[in-house]
Amino acid sequence: VNPDRTIMVVNPNTTVAMTETVVAAARRVAAPGTRVVGGTASRGVDSVESNVDEVWGALGVVEQVGVGEEQGVDGYVIACFGDTGLAAAKEVALGPAVGMTEAALYTAALLAARFCVITLPPRTREQSHRVLRETGLAPRCTVRAIDVGVAELTGGSGPAGQGRPPGGAGSVLEAMRVEAQRALAEDAAEAIVLGCAGLADLVEPLQHHLEVPVIDGVAAGVKMVEGLLAQGLSTSRAGTFARPDGTGR
Amino acid sequence: VNPDRTIMVVNPNTTVAMTETVVAAARRVAAPGTRVVGGTASRGVDSVESNVDEVWGALGVVEQVGVGEEQGVDGYVIACFGDTGLAAAKEVALGPAVGMTEAALYTAALLAARFCVITLPPRTREQSHRVLRETGLAPRCTVRAIDVGVAELTGGSGPAGQGRPPGGAGSVLEAMRVEAQRALAEDAAEAIVLGCAGLADLVEPLQHHLEVPVIDGVAAGVKMVEGLLAQGLSTSRAGTFARPDGTGR
Amino acid sequence: VNPDRTIMVVNPNTTVAMTETVVAAARRVAAPGTRVVGGTASRGVDSVESNVDEVWGALGVVEQVGVGEEQGVDGYVIACFGDTGLAAAKEVALGPAVGMTEAALYTAALLAARFCVITLPPRTREQSHRVLRETGLAPRCTVRAIDVGVAELTGGSGPAGQGRPPGGAGSVLEAMRVEAQRALAEDAAEAIVLGCAGLADLVEPLQHHLEVPVIDGVAAGVKMVEGLLAQGLSTSRAGTFARPDGTGR
Amino acid sequence: VNPDRTIMVVNPNTTVAMTETVVAAARRVAAPGTRVVGGTASRGVDSVESNVDEVWGALGVVEQVGVGEEQGVDGYVIACFGDTGLAAAKEVALGPAVGMTEAALYTAALLAARFCVITLPPRTREQSHRVLRETGLAPRCTVRAIDVGVAELTGGSGPAGQGRPPGGAGSVLEAMRVEAQRALAEDAAEAIVLGCAGLADLVEPLQHHLEVPVIDGVAAGVKMVEGLLAQGLSTSRAGTFARPDGTGR
Amino acid sequence: VNPDRTIMVVNPNTTVAMTETVVAAARRVAAPGTRVVGGTASRGVDSVESNVDEVWGALGVVEQVGVGEEQGVDGYVIACFGDTGLAAAKEVALGPAVGMTEAALYTAALLAARFCVITLPPRTREQSHRVLRETGLAPRCTVRAIDVGVAELTGGSGPAGQGRPPGGAGSVLEAMRVEAQRALAEDAAEAIVLGCAGLADLVEPLQHHLEVPVIDGVAAGVKMVEGLLAQGLSTSRAGTFARPDGTGR
Amino acid sequence: VNPDRTIMVVNPNTTVAMTETVVAAARRVAAPGTRVVGGTASRGVDSVESNVDEVWGALGVVEQVGVGEEQGVDGYVIACFGDTGLAAAKEVALGPAVGMTEAALYTAALLAARFCVITLPPRTREQSHRVLRETGLAPRCTVRAIDVGVAELTGGSGPAGQGRPPGGAGSVLEAMRVEAQRALAEDAAEAIVLGCAGLADLVEPLQHHLEVPVIDGVAAGVKMVEGLLAQGLSTSRAGTFARPDGTGR
Repeated sequence: VNPDRTIMVVNPNTTVAMTETVVAAARRVAAPGTRVVGGTASRGVDSVESNVDEVWGALGVVEQVGVGEEQGVDGYVIACFGDTGLAAAKEVALGPAVGMTEAALYTAALLAARFCVITLPPRTREQSHRVLRETGLAPRCTVRAIDVGVAELTGGSGPAGQGRPPGGAGSVLEAMRVEAQRALAEDAAEAIVLGCAGLADLVEPLQHHLEVPVIDGVAAGVKMVEGLLAQGLSTSRAGTFARPDGTGR
Repeated sequence: VNPDRTIMVVNPNTTVAMTETVVAAARRVAAPGTRVVGGTASRGVDSVESNVDEVWGALGVVEQVGVGEEQGVDGYVIACFGDTGLAAAKEVALGPAVGMTEAALYTAALLAARFCVITLPPRTREQSHRVLRETGLAPRCTVRAIDVGVAELTGGSGPAGQGRPPGGAGSVLEAMRVEAQRALAEDAAEAIVLGCAGLADLVEPLQHHLEVPVIDGVAAGVKMVEGLLAQGLSTSRAGTFARPDGTGR
Repeated sequence: VNPDRTIMVVNPNTTVAMTETVVAAARRVAAPGTRVVGGTASRGVDSVESNVDEVWGALGVVEQVGVGEEQGVDGYVIACFGDTGLAAAKEVALGPAVGMTEAALYTAALLAARFCVITLPPRTREQSHRVLRETGLAPRCTVRAIDVGVAELTGGSGPAGQGRPPGGAGSVLEAMRVEAQRALAEDAAEAIVLGCAGLADLVEPLQHHLEVPVIDGVAAGVKMVEGLLAQGLSTSRAGTFARPDGTGR
Repeated sequence: VNPDRTIMVVNPNTTVAMTETVVAAARRVAAPGTRVVGGTASRGVDSVESNVDEVWGALGVVEQVGVGEEQGVDGYVIACFGDTGLAAAKEVALGPAVGMTEAALYTAALLAARFCVITLPPRTREQSHRVLRETGLAPRCTVRAIDVGVAELTGGSGPAGQGRPPGGAGSVLEAMRVEAQRALAEDAAEAIVLGCAGLADLVEPLQHHLEVPVIDGVAAGVKMVEGLLAQGLSTSRAGTFARPDGTGR
Repeated sequence: VNPDRTIMVVNPNTTVAMTETVVAAARRVAAPGTRVVGGTASRGVDSVESNVDEVWGALGVVEQVGVGEEQGVDGYVIACFGDTGLAAAKEVALGPAVGMTEAALYTAALLAARFCVITLPPRTREQSHRVLRETGLAPRCTVRAIDVGVAELTGGSGPAGQGRPPGGAGSVLEAMRVEAQRALAEDAAEAIVLGCAGLADLVEPLQHHLEVPVIDGVAAGVKMVEGLLAQGLSTSRAGTFARPDGTGR
Repeated sequence: VNPDRTIMVVNPNTTVAMTETVVAAARRVAAPGTRVVGGTASRGVDSVESNVDEVWGALGVVEQVGVGEEQGVDGYVIACFGDTGLAAAKEVALGPAVGMTEAALYTAALLAARFCVITLPPRTREQSHRVLRETGLAPRCTVRAIDVGVAELTGGSGPAGQGRPPGGAGSVLEAMRVEAQRALAEDAAEAIVLGCAGLADLVEPLQHHLEVPVIDGVAAGVKMVEGLLAQGLSTSRAGTFARPDGTGR
């Protein structure tokens, strides 16, 4: 059967295991007629943790959206917290392209008056602040971080469903839980946004512990792209996101 | 066949024709397994144009969400620009409740760097500004108005599909088109948000004229509610939206 | 002797004891020629602590301002922290209508560079944030809460002057004092705004303990209404607050 | 008979005619028990139109508040748009000190969703923006200017009640009226703030023409000071406005 | 003679003529002991006008700063309006790295209460808004655009000093002049920021016409880098700009 | 040899030892061709710690800039945290005038995503907040204070190079170090701004301890003035800073 629509989840780094994790997260929430495919940067960095990494990640996004366009992909989710390369993706893609960060933040804003992003490692906090500035949600959202590298996540974890070794993922869960509790108590946060791709497996246990909504931006992004497609909407071509070969305004 | 989920589109005023219009708009974009029902305030005002109207509208929202909860409704879209009663709806409903205004604004923010709400009548502009303050999108969005009353819309129009008399709806379309052109030229807007419920029929002709995305908040709201349901997410009960009979925090 | 002016203090809930408390607070600061009357919602909720309560409270405000208009009331103070129904009151009343929250915040801003609202119960913090967004004073004001219900206040207290049982009111005073000390030390607050109606009796003891201004919004509101009346000023009818039966702009 | 309270209206420039004008404006709105006295800078500039003028004006404010303190003045209104020297006045005075600008802006905010300051001459616009930043009301207020010097106002005008030559004051009125009409039409302003001391005579004719509230900050300030005195409130001594000889915090 | 310091002006596009133009502009203002060298992206795009161009430009910046580090360059100016790749440059470079946009905006803020960026082509306006959000100067700065492509600038212009053909550059000057006049009249701008690299030749004629400061970000950036070097200051390594191989915080 | 340019460092208080300290700090970073001279208020206060002090300080600034203009000074640095009198200095001086606070903040913003001002004594925090509002950097900067008076700094210290008694300066250093550590840990600050003139001697030891940039605004201001002079830029005369004898706009 032909799918009704194809959504590519773009992993801006070169780690295929991470792509598999985010694709699995996307499939768990995708509508029946949606086919989810993954795109992995063919070159660049194996995780995006620094500003230089983001430059390479953005290049990977442009590259994979280009691949997707040739394959007739209908919409894209950029699966890297901080939404590196997102403006370029919106420009290149014929259909809608949504960042996991913007999707997560708007989703949180529908559910809670105040919320908190918990990202990792600490040095990437500014990436969250950048998207908060763009979305305007800074007055409603704090940013916290746990001292774990992205590589630790992907290193210890195989594709979703294979089970993570209790050590790696368990300690991330515990660190997240502790920081989230602080956000609820000290920031009056009412929901938690997971500030990294590939953490979808933490949604359920954290939600169970915390009793507040926990949001994975990849899942949120898939549903936003599906929503835009159902409304026949795509990125505006007037101005900022005019096609690169167009004249803009 | 049982639907997978039921979404109620809540019309805070007492005009059944308006409810039919917004339900029709919702159905056009709803997913296959979604049943859309309408809720009409049983008392109050026949259109929401003033601050007193908003008070009555909010009461209608509380009432209809209460009805929906008894009927096992899964999620709600509040179909009145300005999202009157939305905080109460989030508090009362077990499942997610989304305002057409917040949904429209977040949708526009996914598609365009800058955009414009065109609302009516002019005295209701502050309702849009209020939601822009809450969402934080004020720096990216201007608010314009056309000098048409809500009653003029519903008076001349039957349920979707019956065709509107060219006079009434046509003149609204023309007024919208002129104001939207100004927004593109003077505000550098790249997308247009329709600032009133019941205008879904204008999306297509306006989009055709303007060549930028035109967003109807009811449609946007339905897709956001579906997205939240697919992610198993609902309003946070920690703090602001704790159930009224609960202890809050 | 005929009074020079009549000000109605509108209590949006149905608890007459609360009305008596706020009327007493108003009378303590009113000018010689001012007659203060109370308005109590005839239906709705006995205290406003949730978003649904606010909807009923707003309806009570509209109702009582309507009563006041028939009685020739000159101006109104809405006596509920969060200013529920205030926009409708400004619209309905011929004379000025001021919310206790906006009055308290502007008063604090005249006296201190930074200040703190201490509200109750914790779940109502967002009501304060909403008014802070409208007034623009968010950068100068923090919001704290004590874990006491509004009902505890009114339950234990009779009309002003009758003396409260030491248990109930005393513990509120102590909780307020502790939280206010934190605001001075941690937020660099220089004044305290009492975030609930009916707390005027706390002004003096708190001020004595803290040695900073402590502001009761009902008193502040009465003086602001008197000030507007002396200047011959009332709500603008151009746009947002045009009379509901008018055409607006 | 002894007055209940004495309020000094401080004119930061050396022009006695200006002091007389603002004192007259203050007396028109003062409560029966209020004695209004004027304070005129003994040295400095004859009108405050530049940044250097503001320095001299601030010195005049400190000087005159010092004089007032010796005379037992209960509260102060600083009668210069831009509130030059206000922080020092709050620090020096035992009782409350209110700036005509902050008073006018908070008054406008009680009456209208959006409003406009019309100041003069154009080079002083930044003085209004400075107070808008402090008060947080910038999102609700535009600043416009007419090309008239302060000296033109005072040159042509005697003390209130003597009648101004139709030429000078009339042309200011006309310029104000034209600019205010633009503010209503282009900025969606719903009230007008007169952006200069000594313009109280324009309130009535402008209000008549425009049919929106027109606010004179001197009158607004007097009522705010009276209101603070009635509540037993004065400037916080914790931190920013600690007495200069105190230890602060 | 050995220079006291070497500053690289990094041109993120591949057009050597553009590099020569910005290097010439840098040399005109550099201190006696400063050697200015140019860096040109070895691959990517020949002008940066779209979001995809920015991705390639950022890669060019990383590349050229890497080259500079090997050559012992002391500091960097990123010569592309919008500061593409700047965060990565700050991270990679041992010495300070300054964007021409941030430098221009801070310089304008030292000289004028309000100012205007005039950029080109119109579709790149959002790049300016992004830096305004980061710097916080949005309330003081408007963004305007002229309908000219970057290529038109570089196409018609040789290295500084060779004289541009009157056609190309002249029409840019004229378009800039017209838009700047509008900014002075309609936005109350008091200074103009040239919103593109390679426009230094316009500074003098525009300044002559407009009689307000006109700022070229490349020149401003060179002086800021020199200033940081003289103070012994470089990018903080705590957090956001920790070296990519470091541990961050 | 004639200097290429003369920069006056204006000390708004009357303490010559403070002037000598800031002049020494300025000379340490000044370019070879720059002559640095000091200006000391001839009357006023011996340190600026209160709002009244600021009024006298501003007068000292106007006075000394006037002296400088007669002596042909090319540019000015106002050496008082809070930039008292700066707007007047920009207006009076023919060449550029830069405040140590604005210079320090822009410098910090070039080096770090987030930073912290540590000022003294605590009551002056609002002076920092005022400049943060003007510069727009409030979202990136926290303000902390140590409980030390300005007089304690100048009392114990002679001109730079003479060595301070270990007691006074040492305890300031220690208090600064402790507060700065808190800023790094609790505010995610990545750089520290010294919030008082005359603290340049602390830059090196603090930088050594903290391993983040530590910024002295006097040094930063000297380099900014040199940079403006090299670009041929001075304060705009259109509007806000028009010469006091001019017509402005």
